[in-house]
Amino acid sequence: MADGSIKALVFDVFGTVVDWRTSVAREVEAVAREKGWTVDATAFAVNWRARYQPSMDPVRRGEKPYARLDDLHRDSLKAVLAEAGLDGSLDGDELEHLNRAWHRLTPWPDSVPGLTRLKTRFVLATMSNGNTALMVNMAKNAGLPWDTILGSEPAQNYKPVPSVYLTGADWLGLRPDEVLMTAAHNTDLAAARALGFKTAFVLRPNEHGPEQTTDLAAAEDWTYVADSMEDLAGQLGC
Amino acid sequence: MADGSIKALVFDVFGTVVDWRTSVAREVEAVAREKGWTVDATAFAVNWRARYQPSMDPVRRGEKPYARLDDLHRDSLKAVLAEAGLDGSLDGDELEHLNRAWHRLTPWPDSVPGLTRLKTRFVLATMSNGNTALMVNMAKNAGLPWDTILGSEPAQNYKPVPSVYLTGADWLGLRPDEVLMTAAHNTDLAAARALGFKTAFVLRPNEHGPEQTTDLAAAEDWTYVADSMEDLAGQLGC
Repeated sequence: MADGSIKALVFDVFGTVVDWRTSVAREVEAVAREKGWTVDATAFAVNWRARYQPSMDPVRRGEKPYARLDDLHRDSLKAVLAEAGLDGSLDGDELEHLNRAWHRLTPWPDSVPGLTRLKTRFVLATMSNGNTALMVNMAKNAGLPWDTILGSEPAQNYKPVPSVYLTGADWLGLRPDEVLMTAAHNTDLAAARALGFKTAFVLRPNEHGPEQTTDLAAAEDWTYVADSMEDLAGQLGC
Repeated sequence: MADGSIKALVFDVFGTVVDWRTSVAREVEAVAREKGWTVDATAFAVNWRARYQPSMDPVRRGEKPYARLDDLHRDSLKAVLAEAGLDGSLDGDELEHLNRAWHRLTPWPDSVPGLTRLKTRFVLATMSNGNTALMVNMAKNAGLPWDTILGSEPAQNYKPVPSVYLTGADWLGLRPDEVLMTAAHNTDLAAARALGFKTAFVLRPNEHGPEQTTDLAAAEDWTYVADSMEDLAGQLGC
């Protein structure tokens, strides 16, 4: 049953809406082929992503000023290349192109049809740690029908810092309980629920590949639990 | 001819994309009928709008902190009602509904088809003094296909303060010369051009009604001069 008080849905994006793992691996594979690298492209992608949470921690702790995710991704990419003995093997433009693999991530098959249905009744916005340009370019490339981009850049901080969620609701002119935070990650939903948001868990059992051990089930009684974006649209009456 | 360096178009909205004058007058007329007011609805709308620029000046001069346009609009509305001897004639919900007339403005007939064509090749964002909620709700109501909302709220200031334009380009990850500022107002374009933006003038000879005396022609050799959003789309190869 749709909850009549919900006016907007805000979405975690990496893992929830798009499949970063196979998308980044595909781009690494293409560069490796061109450059003659011998690398495991999936392991490269996973290693790059493993630096994601730690790279944001100094900003969250207030030890460093906000730097957008594109810049953190570039630093992480350089570290992964160095670790693989590949530093210096990409020139500036090539490095930038590979770094922008995150602007070209592929949606899960149900994401665009599900979001398109949800957009008929609700405001849809990102609530991602990705910066505005990354989110806009990804949406343009993949056909994601956001009404606007919210998340880290408006708050100049990173989830799960409360100001990120709260700034998003505030800019939409809504109370947290009028906003449905949607994510494949229980911790993201827990942070939003603690601030008064409604919550929707969307199961993504392959975000981390066939061996995934985390977020295989709802850890709390979230407002909605769905196994795809189309399932969520159906539950919300779209 | 399309300029190949342009990656995004950003838009003034009030007057350029939507017809605030007849839209607000229509909403005032509806309230007046219900309340039995004897008012000239168009004069009421024009009076309300006349307070728009002065209401932002203290923020531009740094004398007051940023307050979103919804709040400035509400203060102006109360002043217009008081001047007409109508203060106290609307309760809180009624006042809020009328204040949100700005969330329900009607686009000029060429706006949605023109923007829809432009969206096929360019990132489209607002560069308005309207706050995010106002812009999102207006887009939802009118079918305006923005990729994201930029403008006053990201910069916490009001055009023509440079940070408003510059924050927008920066969040899109673009240099000003990769962004086409589109407006029906020569002063808005002059401010953007001074910062390095490309400029497009779209003629709106009826924004202020049949007696309009301002912005009836391009005051400088803007990058593009168009007489509708569809004309601009054609000039940009869309």
